[in-house]
Amino acid sequence: MSGSTLGKLFAVTNFGESHGPAIGCVIDGCPPGMALSVDDIQPDLDRRKPGTSRHVTQRREDDRVEILSGVYDGQTTGTPIALLIRNEDQKSKDYGNIADAFRPGHADYTYLQKYGIRDHRGGGRSSARLTAPTVAAGAVAKKWLKQKYGVVVNGYLAQLGENKIPFESLVHVHDNPFFAANATMIAELETYMDKLRKSGESCGARINVVASGVPVGWGAPIYDRLDAAIAYAMMGLNAVKGVEIGAGFASVEQLGTQHSDEMTPEGFLSNNAGGVLGGISTGQDITVSIAIKPTSSIRLDRQTINKAGESVVINTHGRHDPCVGIRATPIAEAYLALVLMDHALLHRAQNADVMVATPKIASSAATSSASTKGRADNHDPNEA
Amino acid sequence: MSGSTLGKLFAVTNFGESHGPAIGCVIDGCPPGMALSVDDIQPDLDRRKPGTSRHVTQRREDDRVEILSGVYDGQTTGTPIALLIRNEDQKSKDYGNIADAFRPGHADYTYLQKYGIRDHRGGGRSSARLTAPTVAAGAVAKKWLKQKYGVVVNGYLAQLGENKIPFESLVHVHDNPFFAANATMIAELETYMDKLRKSGESCGARINVVASGVPVGWGAPIYDRLDAAIAYAMMGLNAVKGVEIGAGFASVEQLGTQHSDEMTPEGFLSNNAGGVLGGISTGQDITVSIAIKPTSSIRLDRQTINKAGESVVINTHGRHDPCVGIRATPIAEAYLALVLMDHALLHRAQNADVMVATPKIASSAATSSASTKGRADNHDPNEA
Amino acid sequence: MSGSTLGKLFAVTNFGESHGPAIGCVIDGCPPGMALSVDDIQPDLDRRKPGTSRHVTQRREDDRVEILSGVYDGQTTGTPIALLIRNEDQKSKDYGNIADAFRPGHADYTYLQKYGIRDHRGGGRSSARLTAPTVAAGAVAKKWLKQKYGVVVNGYLAQLGENKIPFESLVHVHDNPFFAANATMIAELETYMDKLRKSGESCGARINVVASGVPVGWGAPIYDRLDAAIAYAMMGLNAVKGVEIGAGFASVEQLGTQHSDEMTPEGFLSNNAGGVLGGISTGQDITVSIAIKPTSSIRLDRQTINKAGESVVINTHGRHDPCVGIRATPIAEAYLALVLMDHALLHRAQNADVMVATPKIASSAATSSASTKGRADNHDPNEA
Amino acid sequence: MSGSTLGKLFAVTNFGESHGPAIGCVIDGCPPGMALSVDDIQPDLDRRKPGTSRHVTQRREDDRVEILSGVYDGQTTGTPIALLIRNEDQKSKDYGNIADAFRPGHADYTYLQKYGIRDHRGGGRSSARLTAPTVAAGAVAKKWLKQKYGVVVNGYLAQLGENKIPFESLVHVHDNPFFAANATMIAELETYMDKLRKSGESCGARINVVASGVPVGWGAPIYDRLDAAIAYAMMGLNAVKGVEIGAGFASVEQLGTQHSDEMTPEGFLSNNAGGVLGGISTGQDITVSIAIKPTSSIRLDRQTINKAGESVVINTHGRHDPCVGIRATPIAEAYLALVLMDHALLHRAQNADVMVATPKIASSAATSSASTKGRADNHDPNEA
Repeated sequence: MSGSTLGKLFAVTNFGESHGPAIGCVIDGCPPGMALSVDDIQPDLDRRKPGTSRHVTQRREDDRVEILSGVYDGQTTGTPIALLIRNEDQKSKDYGNIADAFRPGHADYTYLQKYGIRDHRGGGRSSARLTAPTVAAGAVAKKWLKQKYGVVVNGYLAQLGENKIPFESLVHVHDNPFFAANATMIAELETYMDKLRKSGESCGARINVVASGVPVGWGAPIYDRLDAAIAYAMMGLNAVKGVEIGAGFASVEQLGTQHSDEMTPEGFLSNNAGGVLGGISTGQDITVSIAIKPTSSIRLDRQTINKAGESVVINTHGRHDPCVGIRATPIAEAYLALVLMDHALLHRAQNADVMVATPKIASSAATSSASTKGRADNHDPNEA
Repeated sequence: MSGSTLGKLFAVTNFGESHGPAIGCVIDGCPPGMALSVDDIQPDLDRRKPGTSRHVTQRREDDRVEILSGVYDGQTTGTPIALLIRNEDQKSKDYGNIADAFRPGHADYTYLQKYGIRDHRGGGRSSARLTAPTVAAGAVAKKWLKQKYGVVVNGYLAQLGENKIPFESLVHVHDNPFFAANATMIAELETYMDKLRKSGESCGARINVVASGVPVGWGAPIYDRLDAAIAYAMMGLNAVKGVEIGAGFASVEQLGTQHSDEMTPEGFLSNNAGGVLGGISTGQDITVSIAIKPTSSIRLDRQTINKAGESVVINTHGRHDPCVGIRATPIAEAYLALVLMDHALLHRAQNADVMVATPKIASSAATSSASTKGRADNHDPNEA
Repeated sequence: MSGSTLGKLFAVTNFGESHGPAIGCVIDGCPPGMALSVDDIQPDLDRRKPGTSRHVTQRREDDRVEILSGVYDGQTTGTPIALLIRNEDQKSKDYGNIADAFRPGHADYTYLQKYGIRDHRGGGRSSARLTAPTVAAGAVAKKWLKQKYGVVVNGYLAQLGENKIPFESLVHVHDNPFFAANATMIAELETYMDKLRKSGESCGARINVVASGVPVGWGAPIYDRLDAAIAYAMMGLNAVKGVEIGAGFASVEQLGTQHSDEMTPEGFLSNNAGGVLGGISTGQDITVSIAIKPTSSIRLDRQTINKAGESVVINTHGRHDPCVGIRATPIAEAYLALVLMDHALLHRAQNADVMVATPKIASSAATSSASTKGRADNHDPNEA
Repeated sequence: MSGSTLGKLFAVTNFGESHGPAIGCVIDGCPPGMALSVDDIQPDLDRRKPGTSRHVTQRREDDRVEILSGVYDGQTTGTPIALLIRNEDQKSKDYGNIADAFRPGHADYTYLQKYGIRDHRGGGRSSARLTAPTVAAGAVAKKWLKQKYGVVVNGYLAQLGENKIPFESLVHVHDNPFFAANATMIAELETYMDKLRKSGESCGARINVVASGVPVGWGAPIYDRLDAAIAYAMMGLNAVKGVEIGAGFASVEQLGTQHSDEMTPEGFLSNNAGGVLGGISTGQDITVSIAIKPTSSIRLDRQTINKAGESVVINTHGRHDPCVGIRATPIAEAYLALVLMDHALLHRAQNADVMVATPKIASSAATSSASTKGRADNHDPNEA
């Protein structure tokens, strides 16, 4: 039950600080016999890493991952897979000026109060850099989920500050620096970000993540529901302040006839549930939306206190993302994949023998449209 | 790691079905020496139970709790506290007509697919009735948190369908059947509910929960963050589709200077963080907001399928809440209290020896105003 | 990770005190669709209960079990199975005289020091009575293991005080009050016990437990080895002071050529391993032997101290087993079954897809002889 | 609940294979503010490492440990401490001849059957080499336990094959290559080992481990007893086949008056309990004894089968310990320290507020003599 471990059967234990010798994780419980190499993991790390465009931090972190164990002859052995990423670009001096003051919106104050000591360099363990090992572990889960069940997890930027980004197609996600599922609005977003960056400000973002192909039956009634596990993982992602599944907060103003998803032999007619009913997957797309707060490290003056409890003014130079949400898409995908992987194993542990006479309703075809309808009900920011 | 257990050190294991012999829970890890009797638990169960007004289900469930173990001579002994609630009003016939069809928005379909068998009576384990044991356990946590740390957890109905309910004062919460922190709008809500009930429809709701007096330092960086644990618990509450902490989704459109909470020797100047930074409590109020979907059991015709996979029309008579959100306030309070209790024990297990030179900033005074400001930033539905 | 829970996927949470309202447990994670009724559980409880012969305590405890949840229409539903046993024969006065003094060999002193309060009535939670819920849970595990894998768990009394009991046949176990796998030595054991009882003394015992039919592959390398889990469960059984697997302590004086079990296409040639190699089951019988200390509650005067720290003399009247080991056989069987059940689920969670080309060696035929040989190497007390 | 994790609050996750890139562990939950450097860890690793005398394997493994995280400015920060040990001396060819055959007494067969794939090089994950990370983690626990509670853990070789080693004094343990608490018998043991090694045989051993200074109150009643946790850890140590606490198996033949430890205001009069009553520490020495089987890798011919299921003869050359028990002493110490550390944190999490009026009995003085008496009752092999 170690606090730094995510998952019960596919258990990922995270370690490291931003400016220590290394960061990494240990994946325990991975099924054996799956082909695995650095090439399966590095691409997602590269999607997350800084310096990929002028709109994110210019820190240089190659984030090269090394597999230390659990793989033999190119295949997973079923024993723990340790992943190591050495820290490189450690300009600790960038952070010297904040060693004694508590940055507003950061964990500086809470860490010191909890532990009595904190590694302030680059935010230490609270740095978003620590999402890299989770992304690496998520890549392993993604591969297994796809091979075994055809599950695919896709995320995209749904809103950047005040700019809602119409959903056009997932094919665009990799063609722009924002992970936007949109091709027509990129220039506008670039302009917005350039202006924001020059102003010294930062902004928030909304990320949507969708898992397709999840079989009906994953999850549990009480307490370890699939949606609860997803909320746990997503709220645990740095800077996240809100999580929605399916219709989310829009369901507050829906009526019963608007929300509950009707069923036909051809499938569900909508997906307000977001693919989860009673804590268990329905077979429809699992649709998740998260709110990411604006970066707390900004160049503008902010009022705070120092270790002595004295009032001081602070502004954070150094190299920071004007919107941490931009790089959050691959991270959110990884968290969702890890939750699904864990529940896939939990489900078959208990229910491997279950035979259901009732034919599963063909939700695949229905799902895409249903998801759209579902997300329409959801006042999805994608909708123009 | 049993899926039906909530918490690691203050571990609550839930059992039971709506129409089985009994429901209940086992609380493991409660500190010894605390005075405890049924009188500490029954009041919260009574707040949650049905039949308290015409706006909720008229089922008769006395929900009398019995303490089976863990208490001797009026005090907790540190051994497991088993709580038992016998089921009484079981009109299974009410549900006979839905034994073979899958109610839209319910777990009927997912349970059968997962387990190959389901106890359909009253929704079986997916019934909101199963929140009673959690409420009972939450009452134990509330008492300890208040005695030991002065922590108080209060919830209230913030929105009922389309009706946003201005926050006036917590004193009003117990004076109306809606748990509204408001005295002037009750008649309007009564009218809305009467009309809704007659129409056969149902509506959603938003509940806010606030924990005051939580010391700085509870929680952890990765993965077991306090906000992640809160999101897990809240999303696990029946019918919840969204969870926000602090500014929540409003943070998407905030700028860095608007969101991050500045600090002074007198305290924080706002509470967009909702009392959690870097996964650790700040000492400010912990502010949580949840979205509850409209009741899925309605009298109006809905399209669905039966066990044979055939298309059928269903409408649910029997006795149901036109808005399950109305009774959700004490449940949400319980879940938050259980998470805080668990993290209180986790924190002192590791950090009991920590001495911090830096004086904690006086957040108490600042908090109330800060919370208001924080929730203002949060576009709180309470705001007219 | 609740301390009162045994197992990860087949998780049994135990509650209750000897003289409280009730004792029981919650079984979480049981696979659905297995026929289950009180008749499957009561027999093992009856084997364990007191008053079955003059050689055990004359307390009257019917130990009638009630199933509160998790079973519908005669089948397990996959949801938590709560088992309740009401306490009846509570002559607390029997224990009044020991409320203030610490009985040597009992948990009186350690409980008070740990919790600051203790329910002394009948030993409270430290009473062997609390093994009843574990026996009940074990009966559920036994049924599933037998139906699904043909696994059978049998225990027997191997030594009573200084009397080593030659192993004749398991068929005799149910024909005598000692659970001895022997028919010729019963009179001798009766005489020994009568003499012991009259003397006011108590004696220790050795129990052997054997699980047959366990497939190769259950367990894990580090740390959660099958043998480690067995040792945890067995040492957790009241009054146990030692645990052996396979050759056990005899292996200290064995040479490499004597200990390691050679293999042939027909099977293993011995079973010094006791069915576990590298923490993983071999497919041979799993052979476990445990040492049970003499009952601490005896009529003879013993030196101790009271709550005030003063020296006092104590002797325990009331109704006690002169040898708690006699009733320990069904308890040991239950603990072993619970460990195997949990590891059966853990194994298939990770390795359900594993296909091994190598044919499993036919260990069945070889096992019986191998076990004998193995236990011979083990200087088994059964050997005359 | 990852299987490769030991402990709940001081959780050690182990990874690596004998001939992979590296082995190591992640320690999660270490209290912050403790001075820690490689110098605190390396000494125990050096005690365990091979090549220290002609009586152990001549493999060259420097086992240099690197601290990757969780330590800042020379102190623990409360975040995960990752420890890395690179593998060096990997003569995989030594093992080429055993790639296809299953070595008797080894995990070759069970691993392949469980996972369908195995890293045979040097035994892969089943190699005793994987105890190094546990020893490293144990060193951290030892330091904290000593600083915080004055707890000291000492182990020694009590029997080597048929040679029982009289206990003289712990001061001798570091003066001979056997970890024997004896100065007069070393030459005899050297002669025995030289003869054994030349013969190609191997032998078993018995290790005793004693923890002194453990406060009364650590542990729990059911199921997570301190003795159960110790048995779990010890049986999990490679090659262990038996675990005793206190009087162990000797208690089978003891009478009630012989076994139960009488108490006086000056302390306990014996220690047959081995420092644990009712699963909770008594304040006396915690005395544990384990049986270690003879090394399975020997030069003499053994009958086995290969992957094709064919009968073959195997003998293992390469560099192996003629008695793996010789190097097991520091490993057993580490396992005991880790269990105590975890329970120290678990205890204060629940019971930090407990105030006991009753003065703890002065067990310190009484303990040493009591332990001796206790181990005498235990037919301790140390006794000539």
